[in-house]
Amino acid sequence: MAASGTSSGQPIATLDASLVPNLPSSAPMLFEAKKKKNLSFETIAQALGRDEVACAALFYGQAQASQDDLKNLSQILEIPLDTLQATELAHFPDRGRNMQMPPRDPLVYRLYEIVQNYGYAYKAILNEKFGDGIMSAISFSTHVEKETDEKGDWVKITWRGKWYVAW
Amino acid sequence: MAASGTSSGQPIATLDASLVPNLPSSAPMLFEAKKKKNLSFETIAQALGRDEVACAALFYGQAQASQDDLKNLSQILEIPLDTLQATELAHFPDRGRNMQMPPRDPLVYRLYEIVQNYGYAYKAILNEKFGDGIMSAISFSTHVEKETDEKGDWVKITWRGKWYVAW
Amino acid sequence: MAASGTSSGQPIATLDASLVPNLPSSAPMLFEAKKKKNLSFETIAQALGRDEVACAALFYGQAQASQDDLKNLSQILEIPLDTLQATELAHFPDRGRNMQMPPRDPLVYRLYEIVQNYGYAYKAILNEKFGDGIMSAISFSTHVEKETDEKGDWVKITWRGKWYVAW
Amino acid sequence: MAASGTSSGQPIATLDASLVPNLPSSAPMLFEAKKKKNLSFETIAQALGRDEVACAALFYGQAQASQDDLKNLSQILEIPLDTLQATELAHFPDRGRNMQMPPRDPLVYRLYEIVQNYGYAYKAILNEKFGDGIMSAISFSTHVEKETDEKGDWVKITWRGKWYVAW
Amino acid sequence: MAASGTSSGQPIATLDASLVPNLPSSAPMLFEAKKKKNLSFETIAQALGRDEVACAALFYGQAQASQDDLKNLSQILEIPLDTLQATELAHFPDRGRNMQMPPRDPLVYRLYEIVQNYGYAYKAILNEKFGDGIMSAISFSTHVEKETDEKGDWVKITWRGKWYVAW
Amino acid sequence: MAASGTSSGQPIATLDASLVPNLPSSAPMLFEAKKKKNLSFETIAQALGRDEVACAALFYGQAQASQDDLKNLSQILEIPLDTLQATELAHFPDRGRNMQMPPRDPLVYRLYEIVQNYGYAYKAILNEKFGDGIMSAISFSTHVEKETDEKGDWVKITWRGKWYVAW
Amino acid sequence: MAASGTSSGQPIATLDASLVPNLPSSAPMLFEAKKKKNLSFETIAQALGRDEVACAALFYGQAQASQDDLKNLSQILEIPLDTLQATELAHFPDRGRNMQMPPRDPLVYRLYEIVQNYGYAYKAILNEKFGDGIMSAISFSTHVEKETDEKGDWVKITWRGKWYVAW
Amino acid sequence: MAASGTSSGQPIATLDASLVPNLPSSAPMLFEAKKKKNLSFETIAQALGRDEVACAALFYGQAQASQDDLKNLSQILEIPLDTLQATELAHFPDRGRNMQMPPRDPLVYRLYEIVQNYGYAYKAILNEKFGDGIMSAISFSTHVEKETDEKGDWVKITWRGKWYVAW
Amino acid sequence: MAASGTSSGQPIATLDASLVPNLPSSAPMLFEAKKKKNLSFETIAQALGRDEVACAALFYGQAQASQDDLKNLSQILEIPLDTLQATELAHFPDRGRNMQMPPRDPLVYRLYEIVQNYGYAYKAILNEKFGDGIMSAISFSTHVEKETDEKGDWVKITWRGKWYVAW
Amino acid sequence: MAASGTSSGQPIATLDASLVPNLPSSAPMLFEAKKKKNLSFETIAQALGRDEVACAALFYGQAQASQDDLKNLSQILEIPLDTLQATELAHFPDRGRNMQMPPRDPLVYRLYEIVQNYGYAYKAILNEKFGDGIMSAISFSTHVEKETDEKGDWVKITWRGKWYVAW
Repeated sequence: MAASGTSSGQPIATLDASLVPNLPSSAPMLFEAKKKKNLSFETIAQALGRDEVACAALFYGQAQASQDDLKNLSQILEIPLDTLQATELAHFPDRGRNMQMPPRDPLVYRLYEIVQNYGYAYKAILNEKFGDGIMSAISFSTHVEKETDEKGDWVKITWRGKWYVAW
Repeated sequence: MAASGTSSGQPIATLDASLVPNLPSSAPMLFEAKKKKNLSFETIAQALGRDEVACAALFYGQAQASQDDLKNLSQILEIPLDTLQATELAHFPDRGRNMQMPPRDPLVYRLYEIVQNYGYAYKAILNEKFGDGIMSAISFSTHVEKETDEKGDWVKITWRGKWYVAW
Repeated sequence: MAASGTSSGQPIATLDASLVPNLPSSAPMLFEAKKKKNLSFETIAQALGRDEVACAALFYGQAQASQDDLKNLSQILEIPLDTLQATELAHFPDRGRNMQMPPRDPLVYRLYEIVQNYGYAYKAILNEKFGDGIMSAISFSTHVEKETDEKGDWVKITWRGKWYVAW
Repeated sequence: MAASGTSSGQPIATLDASLVPNLPSSAPMLFEAKKKKNLSFETIAQALGRDEVACAALFYGQAQASQDDLKNLSQILEIPLDTLQATELAHFPDRGRNMQMPPRDPLVYRLYEIVQNYGYAYKAILNEKFGDGIMSAISFSTHVEKETDEKGDWVKITWRGKWYVAW
Repeated sequence: MAASGTSSGQPIATLDASLVPNLPSSAPMLFEAKKKKNLSFETIAQALGRDEVACAALFYGQAQASQDDLKNLSQILEIPLDTLQATELAHFPDRGRNMQMPPRDPLVYRLYEIVQNYGYAYKAILNEKFGDGIMSAISFSTHVEKETDEKGDWVKITWRGKWYVAW
Repeated sequence: MAASGTSSGQPIATLDASLVPNLPSSAPMLFEAKKKKNLSFETIAQALGRDEVACAALFYGQAQASQDDLKNLSQILEIPLDTLQATELAHFPDRGRNMQMPPRDPLVYRLYEIVQNYGYAYKAILNEKFGDGIMSAISFSTHVEKETDEKGDWVKITWRGKWYVAW
Repeated sequence: MAASGTSSGQPIATLDASLVPNLPSSAPMLFEAKKKKNLSFETIAQALGRDEVACAALFYGQAQASQDDLKNLSQILEIPLDTLQATELAHFPDRGRNMQMPPRDPLVYRLYEIVQNYGYAYKAILNEKFGDGIMSAISFSTHVEKETDEKGDWVKITWRGKWYVAW
Repeated sequence: MAASGTSSGQPIATLDASLVPNLPSSAPMLFEAKKKKNLSFETIAQALGRDEVACAALFYGQAQASQDDLKNLSQILEIPLDTLQATELAHFPDRGRNMQMPPRDPLVYRLYEIVQNYGYAYKAILNEKFGDGIMSAISFSTHVEKETDEKGDWVKITWRGKWYVAW
Repeated sequence: MAASGTSSGQPIATLDASLVPNLPSSAPMLFEAKKKKNLSFETIAQALGRDEVACAALFYGQAQASQDDLKNLSQILEIPLDTLQATELAHFPDRGRNMQMPPRDPLVYRLYEIVQNYGYAYKAILNEKFGDGIMSAISFSTHVEKETDEKGDWVKITWRGKWYVAW
Repeated sequence: MAASGTSSGQPIATLDASLVPNLPSSAPMLFEAKKKKNLSFETIAQALGRDEVACAALFYGQAQASQDDLKNLSQILEIPLDTLQATELAHFPDRGRNMQMPPRDPLVYRLYEIVQNYGYAYKAILNEKFGDGIMSAISFSTHVEKETDEKGDWVKITWRGKWYVAW
């Protein structure tokens, strides 16, 4: 049986009701089950064999679930498989519609601010290292880690994206 | 004497003239010298003992130069030290004004898109790992690496920011 | 009886519930029937004798159905003809209201980006070839093809629009 | 010696002065030479061995010139090679900044309108044919043709982009 | 009894359900009756003794109905007079809230584009003919005609507005 | 010799200097000559054999001049022909960039307001008269007249555009 | 018993249903009672001993009702006092959320236009008369009068606001 | 000789240099002369026989000067008449372009806020008094007065506009 | 038993119904109980042992409740503890989504205006006092006091935020 | 003679050249002199007998200088008095035009974020303490302090504004 709560001792993440109109109809169902069983994304991600961020993206309708994902979700969230299959989870996601830009929430704004302030610096470094092209946001994976030292806690976010050369 | 060009064989990054009105007056001078001496940010960053991205951020007016930075820049770019000191380089930067948001350039847009699409996923994971708070965009460092495998080249971007708990 | 699923083996396209408020009332009914019968746009388009993109545009309320379209849709989707006739399908479409601009979804953003980046290049080439005027977006057809070579899959999109000379 | 004028008999495309502040400094120089020698993009593109649209994109600062491009441009436009090399032509382009969005010019607006109105239709068809992913706007080529029938002239625009599967 | 359908053989105009939240509550009732009885605006306008455009404006909540208008509407639409009187039809209209600007629908966008492109030309001509002032959009009437010649159909729209001199 | 001033006794229209950055470089030259010779658009339009509005649109860079237009302009404005030929007058116009939208000037705002308020009414009437399609803003002409009755002066603006059927 | 209708013979002002989501919940109740009893704001304002505009502002949730206002409203509108007390009428108003800016309705737009066009003129005159500071929009009263002369009807709007000196 | 300074003892209003690009070229010249001679708008307005606000509007390019205005301005500002006649002062004003909306300056924002908050209240009162129509912002005059009582200074602004009935 | 009403004699703050769609589902429940028991934030804040502003922020979904907060809220508001625990109160807040920016309400606009007008002044002073960095809006507390002197009442708002040095 | 540098040991604040077009012409002159003499705002403010923030606001054109301020500035900055008097320093400031909103610089954004997130909390507390009204941003003073404890440095910002009751 899946571990209850988070390994950090923090409460689990749940869904703010005022966000629902911008999400696919699968989102409230998934978050409801997550809340009822008190499961962290870490725990669910392990059951899915996916990274935590990818798992959370699935809940927010930003990624497509495979048939295996559906089976694993059904098991860990105790939602019947055909109920999950009737949702938009395995469909093609319509991405990018749940976030106001610029972001209002301070946590997400800080990520936005990094792009705003260092965008040209990244462009210059990437161009010098790779030439003219882009880092894919699609052939892409990401990971979040927690590091602790004497100064306190540090967030480490990694992005890894395929480089595509411009025509 | 500093190595000419980039280690990747790509041309060096230079400054698009139409960006100048949005930059501090130090920017065109620095980029002009960089171009004349054909120096990569990798080379300049080594001379400064700073990360490449931080070094490029300095050129774009997004970071503050220390007196050591000025000396090192003077030496490697062959600009007289007092000329550099007369610029805004060691002043307090007025950040964030050089980028249109949403970004227009495809490379920078892809970074923006990651925040737009995965913003809530990051928030959920960070909240579960750290509680209520933010990852600082100020007590923050970042690094870019190039990885190559049989599928081609991959960009790896790392963010490391201090976690601050909300009141 | 119509073939089930897509010829590519991919799942069929369905409707994200959060998009419904921006669509005519015919859209959820059509997509519901499509989903229930597991029909691809390729299959439905053949039944209608229309191009796939035009067929999908009909579902999204961006094109007007003829009486023949209604009969064919009734037959393949197994919706009574008078039910379809009571909808807005054969009415004059109020186009362009289902998409946020700039588009949020990465797939659609890439199309937008091509117009943003190459807009003036297209204008210059079209002016030199045709003179002062426009390519019609109304007297217009479009087609999507899939091409595969050793590098992988390629999308080929064709636009064909009438040229109209400016006064 | 290069052919003067366009093969269509239309005047050649030139640069509107009010657009200059949004372009790299190479643009006015290139357009000036093009105008002085009365060269079409068709003619210049042949000299470069590139597609017309790519050639125009080069003029508008939306693509990067190779050393061969510089040599060919130098020859056909009769601009000294080192003059061209001193511009931003072979540098990394900062794309997407010359166009107001939504576009104001009727010709470019029509292209934008197609994306606005048919964006979801393209998404549905591409998803059904290729799965979850995007058509690249970077690993991408495009071509413009003129077709004439009894109804008049028709523009045919082709896009060909690599398909990239989402993670 | 009122003629069914349009004199042009085209279907009648109906109301897109997704527009209802931006309209007064009278609009869906009027359009429903119009659809049920299959009446064109031409037919209804004749019954009202008003111009077609003014009649359609009444349906969209952009004009105020007189008591005579209510009686005529009651008769031709077969809606009880007191039902109509209970709506906002004879109230003071809150104009201009049903249209997104810039307009999304191609037909309405073309009208907007004329104002965008020729606004200063109209201003110059009107100033030279009338002096400093404005053409009223309130003391104003408009009319639409269809003209057909060997090139096809032409729309002729006339605006007639009172000139008011500036202070 | 061309008549001085307007037939209405009003001053002639001239160019506001703050508008110049949004216009092609031909505009200030044309308006300067018009002012120096005190010519109305009515007079210039007669010399060109064009409608007044089309003539003013030429001055504002919203239309393309033919070789005949250049000759006539040269004669009436007393500008050497090759000076005119060196401008953007006979080039392909980059339309729509001189007007802020929504318009600020009251005269132009009133035209915009008519589209905002009656846009859907026009769409309904045009659809019922012509079917699904658009009135062209390109295959288009327009005319302004002055009518006077006991109530005062009235502006009559006529638009005549080709109808194009949607696909 | 309160006089029915307006003294001008015009219909009374009522509430457009599409505005309700932007108003406090008291607004529809008040307007419903006003409509049922056919009362003008002039009549209600007299019962309240307030200016007409202040009275209308109360209905639109832009002002706070005193206990006396509630009693007077209860009496003239025949709504039980405790029903009124259960609404937001006597609460602190959350002002400014019912109007789109720029205003869409022509009547309100004209007021906005005066501020847009003469804002700097007012600032200059007020600064010369009063020094550096502002006219309060809070310690403020306003009044509307009708004047009629041989040219027709004139609106006279008066604003009276306290002057506050800047620090 | 004209009185120096204001009657209130406040400094005279002058022109902020950063506003110049949004003004006609006459504005800096007029304000320069006003400053040099230390004249208030009250004094200049008396010389012109115009209201102070109208006089300031003339300086900001929001109103058209008559030939008499030019003569009076010439005399009081000691600018040669033909210098004034060479400016845009007697031309048709291109109104509304000098103010950012929403206004940034606190004094002008307060005026904007009144329209934002009481817009619907004004509309309701005006409709009940005058019927469906608008108060003209063109056939319009305005006046500013200073009132002082024991609470301090009060601004009294009056608007007087012609009422025009809607069609 | 908690004191009824405010210590100032003013009515208590309640929730405007039109704001509900932008708030978490806990907000209407909390405000309903506050209103029913007629409790001020001062009183509730004392029961929570929190500052008033922090307490109000909790009600508006801008802060996270601890388990102790929930118990105290349950007691003073007489809402069962598990009812509170089922809401989003103890979850991670999704901040910043309840306020339109720029703010419409005059009281909140004044706070915004201070940042708009004095933003650079604060930046300069903070940089001179602390160096390059930011005042945290997260490691942050705030307090509101009322001061009265012979001129009337004064608001005193204090912000106290941790200083974080930029990298 | 005035103390050189800041008391904190930080560099002094200077002016970013890209901000100049949004500032009155006095700003570059003042900052130039401040930089040349290496004066902090603390030092200048003491010479003026004003708060530091008010002093910085003067430099950024957000406050009006008195004749005493001019004398003191002349003395400490060693700028001739009549040079200062020829600038806009003692004129009426046109406030609020130097800051992009939302602010881009992280330091100023944090202040904005506090208003965005806690705006309604402040409104509720102020209404309960003072009734319906506003805190003035004009009859207003502000002060910045530095506090240091074992956790590091803290910024303390105080606002003090007059309360004005709504009508």
